[in-house]
Amino acid sequence: MTISPHVLLSLDDAFELSLSVLLRNGMNERHATAVAKSVVAGQRDECHSHGMYRLLVCVRGLRSGKVNGEAEPEVLNVSPALTRVDARGGFSQVAFDVGAEHLVRKADEVGIAALAINNCFHFSALWQEVEALAEMGVAAMAMTPSHSCVAPAGGTKPLFGTNPFAFSWPRPGDFPFVFDFATSVVARGDIELAKRKGERIPLGWAIDKDGNPTEDSNAALEGAMLTFGSYKGSALSAMIELLAGPLLGDLMSFESVALDAGAAITPYHGELLVAFSPERFAGGATSAKANHERAENLFNAIVDQGARLPSQRRFEARARSNRHGVRLDRGLFDEIREL
Amino acid sequence: MTISPHVLLSLDDAFELSLSVLLRNGMNERHATAVAKSVVAGQRDECHSHGMYRLLVCVRGLRSGKVNGEAEPEVLNVSPALTRVDARGGFSQVAFDVGAEHLVRKADEVGIAALAINNCFHFSALWQEVEALAEMGVAAMAMTPSHSCVAPAGGTKPLFGTNPFAFSWPRPGDFPFVFDFATSVVARGDIELAKRKGERIPLGWAIDKDGNPTEDSNAALEGAMLTFGSYKGSALSAMIELLAGPLLGDLMSFESVALDAGAAITPYHGELLVAFSPERFAGGATSAKANHERAENLFNAIVDQGARLPSQRRFEARARSNRHGVRLDRGLFDEIREL
Repeated sequence: MTISPHVLLSLDDAFELSLSVLLRNGMNERHATAVAKSVVAGQRDECHSHGMYRLLVCVRGLRSGKVNGEAEPEVLNVSPALTRVDARGGFSQVAFDVGAEHLVRKADEVGIAALAINNCFHFSALWQEVEALAEMGVAAMAMTPSHSCVAPAGGTKPLFGTNPFAFSWPRPGDFPFVFDFATSVVARGDIELAKRKGERIPLGWAIDKDGNPTEDSNAALEGAMLTFGSYKGSALSAMIELLAGPLLGDLMSFESVALDAGAAITPYHGELLVAFSPERFAGGATSAKANHERAENLFNAIVDQGARLPSQRRFEARARSNRHGVRLDRGLFDEIREL
Repeated sequence: MTISPHVLLSLDDAFELSLSVLLRNGMNERHATAVAKSVVAGQRDECHSHGMYRLLVCVRGLRSGKVNGEAEPEVLNVSPALTRVDARGGFSQVAFDVGAEHLVRKADEVGIAALAINNCFHFSALWQEVEALAEMGVAAMAMTPSHSCVAPAGGTKPLFGTNPFAFSWPRPGDFPFVFDFATSVVARGDIELAKRKGERIPLGWAIDKDGNPTEDSNAALEGAMLTFGSYKGSALSAMIELLAGPLLGDLMSFESVALDAGAAITPYHGELLVAFSPERFAGGATSAKANHERAENLFNAIVDQGARLPSQRRFEARARSNRHGVRLDRGLFDEIREL
């Protein structure tokens, strides 16, 4: 008898397993449910770096005493267009859920609105958030810093985080148009993976600690990663530091990493979300319905020339997982069960 | 006696020349003043593609009868966070000036606000607009489509415009932090320049009409340009089409180029600007003053490791021009005077 290197779980079983691990490690029902949904969604869409593997990191955060698994987020209705949610040291998921409905209501009322989340431990993929907002009918941007590991273009030292940026556009009757990318060339995990496999990395991903281009994953991890698209990606990364940092009165990547002090907990900082209501923006000679149809013309023109829409692979993975369940590496499955 | 290949003009003389050309080609005082300021600012900052050379394009637009040099922009106060300005077929500068004060006032009041400009001929560099907004105290984003000449990542045909994205952060007592980039790898003018010089272009800038990578500038101009940063730049470019197009009920790049029908007039479409008030966003444990100081720490960390802030070269050029005036190619100077 051979042991399969993978375990197949139904989505319900994957959720129950995640929930039970989180509950017995100090999370209350509300947080555990939100985080379990989030990691199972990552696993379902085959975004493994944001999948059930993250349970290990969550539990490390909870056991360290740094993350509060029972934090009650506090909502501050700053203005008709701005909501602030203080996550009070909890993970971001519950804070997002609480803030999202204010954000969408305000965007529907005044056209554009912002949600500032403060004091949260953030590890979920931003596509989850902007996709949820698109399903509530708005277009949305999300951005957050992380931990310093990326050098600004022309520099030599880690300063920016991998600073993701995500966007969604609602498509009535279809999956939304969604993208979510790191402003670094690749995810830090890609370099860690190359190190584990003893492989070289492509030139352009990173520099060593003296600022020289390197193909050595060890040297890269001791040096700095690079931004995508050279100075343009670097500019975007700086924008994300500013808008999801000082604008909100929260930490930038180099401040969060200093606070972490080597504990390797999920970064602790803020997040900015912006929502746009296609209904409220329409007006004059245009209707929201006609505007949605014109957006579809753009998507058709992309697909008709053989290009893919962003997230297409992810939606295909989702369809597979919805039919067949999710696959989990046997070693990871055992590790999760023992948490 | 040799003729200098350049003409040196004081900023005042450059402005007077630009103003007189625009006035005698059918613009009223208000439009001519705003456009003259804009092209002289481009010349002053040595952004030559947005400098006084643009007077040739402006005049072509005015003489074609397509651009209305006397358009009265119409302001619609949609909500406490949203202003719409119908440029009514004029150039964008006056519409922006009219809308900017509403945008900043609303951002100051509710934290975040948007300005939708519709039905305008847009050719000014976006840094001019976001820099003006930063000087009024807000952080700002600006984006606009253009004319289809860029293929989506994985595609082969022109669909997106060069779709610029700009951002500013106000720095009390200093030039703002400002960037402004095309989401194409390079500006279309860079390929046109290579063609004029008979030079090859680097691989990665463009594809030929069959979708193959090309170093031939003619083949590139008949084919399509590529987005910066591959699929990430392509995703951003699609976002700009959506937010500055269907969201506002205005044209996307492939719709604007169809309307132009080969006349080579400045693209006709909309623009989205978003403003964030650091004062209104501050709150809780943070003050706007402390947040501004923390942003300065980021800028210092960039500069201290030998990297440049975006726009640094432009501000250096501005200082030179403020002292010595602007240099204009003699041939261009003669052409402008004869307009």
